[in-house]
Amino acid sequence: MASTILKWTSCSAMKSMAGGLRIGATPFRAFAAKVEAGTDIVAAAPDVSLQKARSWDDGVASKFSTTPLKDIFRDRRVVIFGLPGAYTGVCSQQHVPSYKNNIDKFRDEKVDSVICVAVNDPYVLNAWAEKLEAKDAIEFYGDFDGSFHKSLGLEKDLSAALLGPRSHRWSAFVVDGKVKVLNVEENPSDFKVSSAEHILKQI
Amino acid sequence: MASTILKWTSCSAMKSMAGGLRIGATPFRAFAAKVEAGTDIVAAAPDVSLQKARSWDDGVASKFSTTPLKDIFRDRRVVIFGLPGAYTGVCSQQHVPSYKNNIDKFRDEKVDSVICVAVNDPYVLNAWAEKLEAKDAIEFYGDFDGSFHKSLGLEKDLSAALLGPRSHRWSAFVVDGKVKVLNVEENPSDFKVSSAEHILKQI
Repeated sequence: MASTILKWTSCSAMKSMAGGLRIGATPFRAFAAKVEAGTDIVAAAPDVSLQKARSWDDGVASKFSTTPLKDIFRDRRVVIFGLPGAYTGVCSQQHVPSYKNNIDKFRDEKVDSVICVAVNDPYVLNAWAEKLEAKDAIEFYGDFDGSFHKSLGLEKDLSAALLGPRSHRWSAFVVDGKVKVLNVEENPSDFKVSSAEHILKQI
Repeated sequence: MASTILKWTSCSAMKSMAGGLRIGATPFRAFAAKVEAGTDIVAAAPDVSLQKARSWDDGVASKFSTTPLKDIFRDRRVVIFGLPGAYTGVCSQQHVPSYKNNIDKFRDEKVDSVICVAVNDPYVLNAWAEKLEAKDAIEFYGDFDGSFHKSLGLEKDLSAALLGPRSHRWSAFVVDGKVKVLNVEENPSDFKVSSAEHILKQI
């Protein structure tokens, strides 16, 4: 397990495609999530909510409010990406910057929201987003109990990396709650199919 | 539960004493942890380890190593305090600064280590410690899976504050693994018996 996390070297070209699935394309995926193209992720998990990233003081002021999935996805074109955790390597150095740096291209594609979600509490996620200077471009949501990722089948135990129950690294294009494209990295340390550049070609 | 977390107003003087326990004193405590004065916390949890706060890159370089409790406590005079989480209110604004600002007094008391522990991963904890400019004074350890706090009976579900399974707010003076003083706040939002100023009077 630790060796999987530590594996930073490149995979084969075939492996690099393993996480990609697109409606109409041959469904070749090494990882089988519960969710698939066509799934309505709001209907599939009606009781799941996320927690908008914010400071502790704002959390207290909001009475620790959460955001239902319908408020995030209904009647909207959303690009969402998930990652193993705030303050980890690929997430900080590549994954978030990839989306931040391409935000204008997503707007050109009439994407209403670009969202980063992680199994972190919303206060940690907020501090990390501020450090990355990414809050203006990207909306950050915590999934502190992992219930959102579990509803998608995208949870992953990363205890070997001292992280505990977290998630795969993934991205999706979701229109009105329905998954149009889902990309899941074979290993959380990979950064291939879940990049902004990749999903921009799929929208 | 949320109201407990939100309760920032002061408790009665009696309540403020509720978390204090000292060898020889009348044991008046509202909260009953598994650990008590006299317990050898190393012997009680021989398989538990903590994770020294460090950057993700340092975590990878260390092959995600952990630190056994014996390496932290054996043959040492340690003051340790635990808190609900990095980037939360009382922890950032009062608890860590309390110990940081009194570090010379702990050294005067021949305390070998002042340690902050939290149910966070070591990368988040490292970033928070750096932000608080507290790493020179205090050693920070993650308890990412909560096993250390569970071994002490100090775990606490803080899902109502969007934090999930975390810990009570507490402090202890531990000599060669044996607990000499244990202070546990009645509510995690309280900051009374777990302060540096309080434990300095107990050493």
